[in-house]
Amino acid sequence: MKILFRMLCLVLLPLAIFAKDSVEKWARYEASFQATISGNPFVGIPFKATFSNGKISKTVAGFYNGNSEFKIRFMPEEEGEWKFVTSSSHKQLNNKTGVFMCVPPTGNNKGPVKVANKYHFSYANKERYIPVGTTVYAWTHQSTALQYLTLNTLKESPFNKLRFCVFPKDYSYVKEEPELFAYHQSKKAETIQGKTKYYWDFTSFNIPFFDSLEKRIDQLDAAGIQADIILFHPYDKKRWGFDSMGYENDLVYLQYITARLASFKNVWWSMANEFDFVKYKTWQQWDDYSRFVYENDPYRHLLSIHNGLEIFDNWKPYFTHASIQNCSAVEDFGRAVLYRDAYGKPVVYDEVCYEGNLPQRWGRLSGEEMVAAFWQAAIAGTYAQHGETYRMPGDTVFWAKGGRLVGTSIPRIKFIHDLQKQSNGYWQLADVWRDHQTAQVDSSEYIIYFGKKMTNQWYFNIPKKNGPLGTAKYKAEIIDTWEMTITPVNEVFEVRSESDYRLIDINNKSIRLPDKPYLAIRLKKIK
Amino acid sequence: MKILFRMLCLVLLPLAIFAKDSVEKWARYEASFQATISGNPFVGIPFKATFSNGKISKTVAGFYNGNSEFKIRFMPEEEGEWKFVTSSSHKQLNNKTGVFMCVPPTGNNKGPVKVANKYHFSYANKERYIPVGTTVYAWTHQSTALQYLTLNTLKESPFNKLRFCVFPKDYSYVKEEPELFAYHQSKKAETIQGKTKYYWDFTSFNIPFFDSLEKRIDQLDAAGIQADIILFHPYDKKRWGFDSMGYENDLVYLQYITARLASFKNVWWSMANEFDFVKYKTWQQWDDYSRFVYENDPYRHLLSIHNGLEIFDNWKPYFTHASIQNCSAVEDFGRAVLYRDAYGKPVVYDEVCYEGNLPQRWGRLSGEEMVAAFWQAAIAGTYAQHGETYRMPGDTVFWAKGGRLVGTSIPRIKFIHDLQKQSNGYWQLADVWRDHQTAQVDSSEYIIYFGKKMTNQWYFNIPKKNGPLGTAKYKAEIIDTWEMTITPVNEVFEVRSESDYRLIDINNKSIRLPDKPYLAIRLKKIK
Repeated sequence: MKILFRMLCLVLLPLAIFAKDSVEKWARYEASFQATISGNPFVGIPFKATFSNGKISKTVAGFYNGNSEFKIRFMPEEEGEWKFVTSSSHKQLNNKTGVFMCVPPTGNNKGPVKVANKYHFSYANKERYIPVGTTVYAWTHQSTALQYLTLNTLKESPFNKLRFCVFPKDYSYVKEEPELFAYHQSKKAETIQGKTKYYWDFTSFNIPFFDSLEKRIDQLDAAGIQADIILFHPYDKKRWGFDSMGYENDLVYLQYITARLASFKNVWWSMANEFDFVKYKTWQQWDDYSRFVYENDPYRHLLSIHNGLEIFDNWKPYFTHASIQNCSAVEDFGRAVLYRDAYGKPVVYDEVCYEGNLPQRWGRLSGEEMVAAFWQAAIAGTYAQHGETYRMPGDTVFWAKGGRLVGTSIPRIKFIHDLQKQSNGYWQLADVWRDHQTAQVDSSEYIIYFGKKMTNQWYFNIPKKNGPLGTAKYKAEIIDTWEMTITPVNEVFEVRSESDYRLIDINNKSIRLPDKPYLAIRLKKIK
Repeated sequence: MKILFRMLCLVLLPLAIFAKDSVEKWARYEASFQATISGNPFVGIPFKATFSNGKISKTVAGFYNGNSEFKIRFMPEEEGEWKFVTSSSHKQLNNKTGVFMCVPPTGNNKGPVKVANKYHFSYANKERYIPVGTTVYAWTHQSTALQYLTLNTLKESPFNKLRFCVFPKDYSYVKEEPELFAYHQSKKAETIQGKTKYYWDFTSFNIPFFDSLEKRIDQLDAAGIQADIILFHPYDKKRWGFDSMGYENDLVYLQYITARLASFKNVWWSMANEFDFVKYKTWQQWDDYSRFVYENDPYRHLLSIHNGLEIFDNWKPYFTHASIQNCSAVEDFGRAVLYRDAYGKPVVYDEVCYEGNLPQRWGRLSGEEMVAAFWQAAIAGTYAQHGETYRMPGDTVFWAKGGRLVGTSIPRIKFIHDLQKQSNGYWQLADVWRDHQTAQVDSSEYIIYFGKKMTNQWYFNIPKKNGPLGTAKYKAEIIDTWEMTITPVNEVFEVRSESDYRLIDINNKSIRLPDKPYLAIRLKKIK
């Protein structure tokens, strides 16, 4: 029956596709409508659409796209036929209907990333997602050529997540005036110091800006990269004023950007970078804005708020995970897990300082330190993220503008990511708060990390907690996290679960380790 | 005028005191009323009283005290005349009035302990309170002689907080059957194994049990010790059934105990010990119960919930602080502060494992490790607490039953407490997340802790962050946290705030340290 049904589908599906629009599951369906509006079409016209497949229905906000065009976008999360009907106070936008087929995902389409197993992530198709991110705050505000160079660099990198800002950045190493702004100018003037003084109409969006931003998000998606979009940031210094638009304009912005972007499957919402350094918004505003984004996103994309020195209320239900800045939490053993246990959510250490050569202390990690941060986070069941701040003559600082990556951590980050992908599940500490070195998937696989301290000889020992019951045998490999080598150990280790807190080899066998830092051991249970 | 007024007070106050009842500020006013009740007087009769001094008014719950006696208790927080009027559906308890004078506190009466400076505590009289606690879970369930021995031990100890359980404990090293139970038995039977099977009337409280408990709380108060009262715990094993009374009975219990004890100035509410190990209550129940206690305590005593392996929602507004079990968080640098920053509240590490000689890993810290835990917590602006689990022939395990303290950490805990009291303010990290060794009060006093690692020579250096502006001079003392010595260094150190992240002595002076672990340096700014 099942096979017959599938064959039938194979025959009928193409017909359905020819008959109507078709969109892959988790891809974007878009419909446009013309309407002539008197007044400001960006804010005056309520316009939404309800999509239904007969089982579930979702209402999504539409938006004005300039030139008398209104759009609705929708990300179907179930295959099959979907219909929609619009509603609006404007006659030309009301009661419009449509239908499309949602077809199976193809190629690299795994759906949006969701929280999985409490502390981790997976794609909607259930495949594990291990965030390996980097940051290029202002890449979309650079020249088109530089943006394409950045895209190419990212495509060739191990990164599957990119943090970047909607609004331009004025900060050390990045002062460029962007070509496109999110808003139309109401007027532009020069200050007596000869600087440009901007006056924006915060209720009138500049469509080419969003077209360009959306193209970049789609290009990242095509490269398998999540777009961790920073909605607000403090690096404005009264130059453009996007950090101080006021409560009502902030909500107009959030309403508009969620209406445009929520249907992009690779979008993550980052309410802010260093929210506490934004001078013009209160704690309550951040709370309101975060809930607003949550409520305006029908798909519940990942949502977080990134701290400077003070951490926001990451426990609030609309935050899917904690996006933490704290270098020291992944600098040594026993730290990274503590935030995880406090929040009961995935912890992504989105800033752990950056690999580079800047004079600032946040921008001068060695490659070794950056790689060690990834390992410290990973064995604790959390996720460190990358950033690169090398400043070379004639080159851009990647973390600021994009361009080329030159750091030594990159291939090592790919190496740990590969190890994580090879596992059958997520890594986490086997005996949390007691053994900060020993991660496991379950009792079938262990990863023991030694950090920067050289360990001469490792006597086989693993926690009894979450360990094998009865007798179990393990094969071991020595992992050099810097040289990226995996060396099998020509021994079989055997444990019996009779001891109190540790399981040791019944013959007390050990492994001689090279005189090097940054080693790890991987154990795999054998029959 | 002021002096005249005071003299007048001196003359008139004794008259006032003779004329009416008088109670010290923060002490307990109590009034009794007789009423003959048909039915169960513990649960059937709403009875409360509203106290007012003309400016503020507070409504407190009354309670049935057996023998047709109902009581109300009240802790006045302002000096002057207070009046009250009762209300009840029972005529004999309704509309009773009274008046008393609240007089200034005397002797050691500093009022209840409150949260101060976000991460710390003070008495109501604004004096800093630095929690130096220990745990004797079942001390009130032991013989009277042993209880008095415990009290004497505590009086001679540095401890100013005691954690203990309302309900008896059945666990390793403590199995005693208490003389008194909180409830009347409805019947008692023997099981076929010859064990006692209890049947309680969970709506009928045993007054002598509460009289005895209250006497102990008052005795602790007289000794300057806060009573961190554990309302529920998992160590019952179906023996008495106090961990599984059911939702309604749990609330009856919480209503009764808060009515009786909220007026005790030294009471702290600990919702549970190892709440997550209690098998019979859901997360939602803990939430309900915590809010219930909060709402039933008109004085807002300190309120927390102590974790086993999973940490409760310490961020909820009714919890005043995080009461954490996690040995490893105070085992090494850079950890203790992380919970503090996640919760934005004081963190009291109420279990950091115990000094003792038990086979269990939670009960075999050395004295050195216990003292180091106090230091690790203290420099991070948090508070470790003590517990002692030495098991000696013919002696009790203090942590379980009380008795004598024999551990080597006790005088060293007094030593650090004395250092903390000598400071003009609370200790906390000067450059949080960057320098985990250097605590400060402000730029006038620094405490630099070296932990178990021996540091040969310390070149004067402190963080620029929160440091002195311009030029500043410091005197130094070498503190041996184990030998309890303070050795002045015969040098003056001078810094100028011109460097980037660290302030060093302008002549790069250093201090030679003894070849010992567990040292610290105290710096004091001089003119």
